[in-house]
Amino acid sequence: MQRRPQGLLRKPDAILPRRIARSAATVDDGALPLAEIWNWIAEQNRAQRHDAARIPFAMLRNWSFDPDSGNLGHDSGRFFTVEGLEVFTDYGPVPHWSQPIIHQPEIGILGFLAKDIGGVLHFLVQAKSEPGNHNGVQLSPTVQATKSNYTRVHKGRDVPCLEYFRNAPPENILADVLQSEQGSWFYRKRNRNMIVEITDDIAPSDHFCWLTLGQLHELLKVDNLVNMDARTVLSCMPAGLADGGPGPDGGLPAAIARSAQSTAGSLHTSTAVMSWITEHQTRHFVQTTPIQLKTVKEWHITDDVIAHDRGLFFGIIAVEVTTNSREVGGWTQPLVRPNSIGTIALLVRRIDGVLHALVNARMEPGYLDVVELAPTVQCSPENYTDADRPPYLDTVLNIRPEQVLYDVELSEEGGRFYRARNRYQIIEVGSEIPDCSADGGLAGYRWLTLYQLTDLLRHSHYINVQARSLIACLRGLQ
Amino acid sequence: MQRRPQGLLRKPDAILPRRIARSAATVDDGALPLAEIWNWIAEQNRAQRHDAARIPFAMLRNWSFDPDSGNLGHDSGRFFTVEGLEVFTDYGPVPHWSQPIIHQPEIGILGFLAKDIGGVLHFLVQAKSEPGNHNGVQLSPTVQATKSNYTRVHKGRDVPCLEYFRNAPPENILADVLQSEQGSWFYRKRNRNMIVEITDDIAPSDHFCWLTLGQLHELLKVDNLVNMDARTVLSCMPAGLADGGPGPDGGLPAAIARSAQSTAGSLHTSTAVMSWITEHQTRHFVQTTPIQLKTVKEWHITDDVIAHDRGLFFGIIAVEVTTNSREVGGWTQPLVRPNSIGTIALLVRRIDGVLHALVNARMEPGYLDVVELAPTVQCSPENYTDADRPPYLDTVLNIRPEQVLYDVELSEEGGRFYRARNRYQIIEVGSEIPDCSADGGLAGYRWLTLYQLTDLLRHSHYINVQARSLIACLRGLQ
Repeated sequence: MQRRPQGLLRKPDAILPRRIARSAATVDDGALPLAEIWNWIAEQNRAQRHDAARIPFAMLRNWSFDPDSGNLGHDSGRFFTVEGLEVFTDYGPVPHWSQPIIHQPEIGILGFLAKDIGGVLHFLVQAKSEPGNHNGVQLSPTVQATKSNYTRVHKGRDVPCLEYFRNAPPENILADVLQSEQGSWFYRKRNRNMIVEITDDIAPSDHFCWLTLGQLHELLKVDNLVNMDARTVLSCMPAGLADGGPGPDGGLPAAIARSAQSTAGSLHTSTAVMSWITEHQTRHFVQTTPIQLKTVKEWHITDDVIAHDRGLFFGIIAVEVTTNSREVGGWTQPLVRPNSIGTIALLVRRIDGVLHALVNARMEPGYLDVVELAPTVQCSPENYTDADRPPYLDTVLNIRPEQVLYDVELSEEGGRFYRARNRYQIIEVGSEIPDCSADGGLAGYRWLTLYQLTDLLRHSHYINVQARSLIACLRGLQ
Repeated sequence: MQRRPQGLLRKPDAILPRRIARSAATVDDGALPLAEIWNWIAEQNRAQRHDAARIPFAMLRNWSFDPDSGNLGHDSGRFFTVEGLEVFTDYGPVPHWSQPIIHQPEIGILGFLAKDIGGVLHFLVQAKSEPGNHNGVQLSPTVQATKSNYTRVHKGRDVPCLEYFRNAPPENILADVLQSEQGSWFYRKRNRNMIVEITDDIAPSDHFCWLTLGQLHELLKVDNLVNMDARTVLSCMPAGLADGGPGPDGGLPAAIARSAQSTAGSLHTSTAVMSWITEHQTRHFVQTTPIQLKTVKEWHITDDVIAHDRGLFFGIIAVEVTTNSREVGGWTQPLVRPNSIGTIALLVRRIDGVLHALVNARMEPGYLDVVELAPTVQCSPENYTDADRPPYLDTVLNIRPEQVLYDVELSEEGGRFYRARNRYQIIEVGSEIPDCSADGGLAGYRWLTLYQLTDLLRHSHYINVQARSLIACLRGLQ
């Protein structure tokens, strides 16, 4: 047998689902051992300086409030603007409001390069500081580029590896789909989520590291380490299919594997799931109109924050960023600062040995198409009184320790959000939580399998960014 | 063997794809023979009176131009409005324009009831006059209801059978998906396309008739008979799968059957197709802003028409409708009147024995998400000079008779469009039209199989209404 240049450890499998399953099963035998990965992250944290100091809006450079509209934007007209949005809807208890929201109509690229190393798919991860990170570097995809980035508006250095995504041959593309981001903070923002396999030998800088999917799954179990962009791209990974099937029955890993690998055992047919989504797109009236920031009601602006009059939701602040690790040495910019750490939880249940996840058809004003599927619970509990608590929140707040499959604090995108952290949980429940199509269940909720969710993730506008994070994490529990 | 109540002619097949294939194969042995269907249509044409006479805008009742915006709307605020749209884009030769456009944000239901009659699925077709029809009744789905219809804004009679769609049990739903309509005339309009199977014995009025899919395919070959709403719902039909597979190789029917029945033999993988669509959603900049009708440039308004200054595209007119067949006896309303009969053509090609159709990622300003897949050619040839003719138009205009698989004039929706007719063609070509991913091919075009198109039709925003019509017709050529 001929040896491959990089040292062939196992026979490569040509079938993508098996290659993905093999990468997911490889933790200790990756190109770099886990212990060295920890060292690399620590090194990157020492090497990359990235400070974001709050400043008054008046100290923003090249950013200003438009005298007519009050909108906050960059002098170039690029990057993003903070504008207003007026919402009328019959979804939820509040029929009408206005709010500040980020407009970023350009579609960026979030992409992982993949490469066969020693017979196992590895993914090129970047250790990256972002101004909003509260803890230094986080692990990001290979490329995280706004159109302003890659068309050089900010006069920075080239984005490494970008050309592999912009000119990928079709046969090298493992995933390529537009996905939405936070619909409460962004107006119809989408990014292009890509995974592209290469065979070139490339020599990326020490900000980069090749990791297996199994190693990424381990790192997803660490607080605030794998960033939002990495999580959303990972969620778009095609389904893995292990040699020999899901393994012995009875255990959680087998229930997850069964859930991931076929339509068999799904509580609802795919046609019924599509019809349920269509019903919810149709059922709710949502009218959103971009308005001038200065006409937003119940919000006010001070020297250094745009805030809700009762201190709810989030604020818009300004920061001065100094860094030694990015395309430019320093800049100022606005960021969204949420007021609290949110609770984002997915209830899962074994139904006849197949894991199902309870997703919610949720309206957020920034969605392009009325609703997307969200985790079971997605809220900041302190924004609710006892009378109007979201469904299943009490279930999440009153679980027993043995029900917790996953409980990690994860950060949202540090390029737009200031220290935005949420507690992500996956909680196993039993038949005390009923089928939602049955009497007593809630129309806006349905139990779906991982296979069904993975199939929907091949398309835009179905699964929201919080659910995508939890799907990436759930796959890592096999 | 027990006899079923309605007289069992064949053993029913429980597997939906086989039931659909059986219905498609049944032309002569339906509940009603074709000859009687012709008689029924002739009768309905005699019985249903429906005249639409052009009137000046001043004679519209309950419709008026808003004094501030100039928008044309109904006093109730429902139905639809004619407003303006301003477009900036890098797609196509014109980077900036404004135009009148119909706003109809409510989502209506277009639905066929299906029922097993004698072991064969039948679909309940309605003979329906619409004010814009140039030729009396056309065949429509069982239900064709705007939200204004079914919430009774126009004080008409109940819509028959509507409740079967509004409260369908999931297991009876064969298709349920939002689909867009003409993006040049409608701003982000979608209708809910549904097919629902029932077992109830119902006794619809003589406006209705149960037809097999094979009979519908025959009727699709008749000029201006099967209406647009029926065609779009038919396009969302799940794939059929005939007993015994596609039949002997070599013939066109076998090539269509192979194209419809699996991913085998597709020129492009489904991942490559999704990536190509994502690339085109990302590639083009399209900014559309609703504006006041009075601020639309290069258009003018007279007593009885809103028209383009150079007589291009379409006009908005008003009609007085008198009828004996609808929920109310008569009304007035605006309609869009296109200026010419368009050419809508799908090139198809057998590639290794599998039929592929050449679709175009096309931007229209009313689409929710930048591009949808259109037929190979979709235009009004007289709007173009020799210098800027659309790709493949000359191919379509210079075909030999033996290349024509389908060539029928079909009408667009008569409730919104006045005598809007287009020539729909399916044309078989050979390898003189190259693979579009190869050198010399056009980036905006791809050869897809029927299976791939049917899979995309389970989702919104992929296939435009013109392509959906041709897909329904193409399936009928097996």
